[in-house]
Amino acid sequence: MSATIDPIAFRNALGQFATGVTIITAKAPDGGLVGLTANSFSSVSLDPPLVLWSLAKTAKSLEVFQNTPNWAIHVLTKDQMDLSNRFASKIDNKFEGIDIETGEGGTPLLKDYSARFQCLETYQYEGGDHIIFVGKVIDFQHSGKEPLLFHSGKYAQARPHAAVVAKDQARAAEEGHEAEGSFTEDFLMYLLERATPQVTLPFHQATQAAGLSLFAMRTLALLSVGDGRSTANIKALNPLEACDMDEAMAGLAVKGLVRMEHNTLFLTDKGREVIVRLIAAGKAAEADALQDLDAWEQRLFKDMLKRVIKRTTLAIPDPFKAG
Amino acid sequence: MSATIDPIAFRNALGQFATGVTIITAKAPDGGLVGLTANSFSSVSLDPPLVLWSLAKTAKSLEVFQNTPNWAIHVLTKDQMDLSNRFASKIDNKFEGIDIETGEGGTPLLKDYSARFQCLETYQYEGGDHIIFVGKVIDFQHSGKEPLLFHSGKYAQARPHAAVVAKDQARAAEEGHEAEGSFTEDFLMYLLERATPQVTLPFHQATQAAGLSLFAMRTLALLSVGDGRSTANIKALNPLEACDMDEAMAGLAVKGLVRMEHNTLFLTDKGREVIVRLIAAGKAAEADALQDLDAWEQRLFKDMLKRVIKRTTLAIPDPFKAG
Repeated sequence: MSATIDPIAFRNALGQFATGVTIITAKAPDGGLVGLTANSFSSVSLDPPLVLWSLAKTAKSLEVFQNTPNWAIHVLTKDQMDLSNRFASKIDNKFEGIDIETGEGGTPLLKDYSARFQCLETYQYEGGDHIIFVGKVIDFQHSGKEPLLFHSGKYAQARPHAAVVAKDQARAAEEGHEAEGSFTEDFLMYLLERATPQVTLPFHQATQAAGLSLFAMRTLALLSVGDGRSTANIKALNPLEACDMDEAMAGLAVKGLVRMEHNTLFLTDKGREVIVRLIAAGKAAEADALQDLDAWEQRLFKDMLKRVIKRTTLAIPDPFKAG
Repeated sequence: MSATIDPIAFRNALGQFATGVTIITAKAPDGGLVGLTANSFSSVSLDPPLVLWSLAKTAKSLEVFQNTPNWAIHVLTKDQMDLSNRFASKIDNKFEGIDIETGEGGTPLLKDYSARFQCLETYQYEGGDHIIFVGKVIDFQHSGKEPLLFHSGKYAQARPHAAVVAKDQARAAEEGHEAEGSFTEDFLMYLLERATPQVTLPFHQATQAAGLSLFAMRTLALLSVGDGRSTANIKALNPLEACDMDEAMAGLAVKGLVRMEHNTLFLTDKGREVIVRLIAAGKAAEADALQDLDAWEQRLFKDMLKRVIKRTTLAIPDPFKAG
């Protein structure tokens, strides 16, 4: 059956096993420094302390690792993606500009790592198109920094396991760490009611400065999503509006921000300019509000808000669905 | 130096290298089924297709693996934490109640996995207190299911890498996938303004049903956080309140929900009962709103809201800081 194994499918299947990422370094007999990125690292033995990794027989650095007694393994942190790419590439001087220390036998050591192991080569084993190197750990450090992960051909990060978090919370609740029945700052409602006005304030200030009511602004925003909307549709999308909406829409036309034809509103160039400027102010406020979230957290935050909205949906019409 | 290696520190350092989790199974020569949890899995070679893992020389199942030509490796999904614990334990019949298939040489195969490899044992290598088993992959499957991770002695899950997400977004923006200057449903402001009333509605309905104004409810909530508050403090914490706050506080005293002494308010038993009931309604609404988020996401969601609040802080006093 092995004769029929598709190498791409096999690689994809292997990729399902998530790993950390390591850079392995050594000093060549001629004094040059070698280093490469590998995720084939594995711990083997505690007593004696042994670890292993494997290297392709076609690798340029194979001869060095076959002939040097010392090498070092660096488990990378989440912030070392670029370094990982660099040591996975074929460039000549991978160490250029990198601040290193010198370890046993002159082995170049990276100063930043999640963990670092200096090893003394112990066994070299046959492994198909690779050689398996087993080394005895003679010194090691670890920093506790968040690790870089590799999974399904992509870099990743670790997150706590949901089931572990749920168990921890259940235990904490049992031990009475969380006071029941009292208003707390961990209350979702409280957090949402505090966050929403703070995030939207710059936008509402810009709206006010443009001389627009909330309803007028919302009308322009709705037209920017889908132009040529009936006044009936705009009213249906603002079920809780307190002002006289007909009057307000007529006011927008007087200001030259919309054009009204047979009870249908269209944005004018001037109206489009105003709403584009307001939206830019809102996006700037959003970027500022989300500044302490990483790119993935920002996306997840919005995704979670969408899930909450979907879960709690009221009968308020959705402007992105309605014509 | 190796004589002085602290095994616990060494184990902690090794734990910095995140891994997937596997269950490895085989059929014993006597027909019994063996299986164990391991994270020492590593891919070795593509051509021939080889993988490895290592087993403690003291393991009960060592003899089986040393004498059977076939074994299978299952890369676990995030939902298989309990199975991982079970196969890591010393219980006798690990397969009891588990639906299995039969693979090459009678090897028991789990039906759920992120990836699964059936192997033919190829090499056994010396590895200190472990034996390194290298097997040739004769068949494999993968499901694409999210993997279970192990890092720093704990189960974990994978999340996309922030830098990768940022790059993807930058590329999408460059290619003009995101229309600039238009109002979108991906707008944080829009999401917050939609989510907040939906999440808080059941609480506000319960407040109304209890015959309380928003301000009256907030006053009781503030007293539940810290009883014996001056009317001045309550007013300072409600800078945007439109009603006559003195009158409203007097009304609460008339209803017997608070007791007023020298311009200081105290919750009565009746008042505490009312606010506890309202908060319970709010917590039930919160639990419902967050139902589609896992336990870790729920915690992260609140944590992100707190970061957004901190980032955008207005001069509105914080009831949890103020006396």
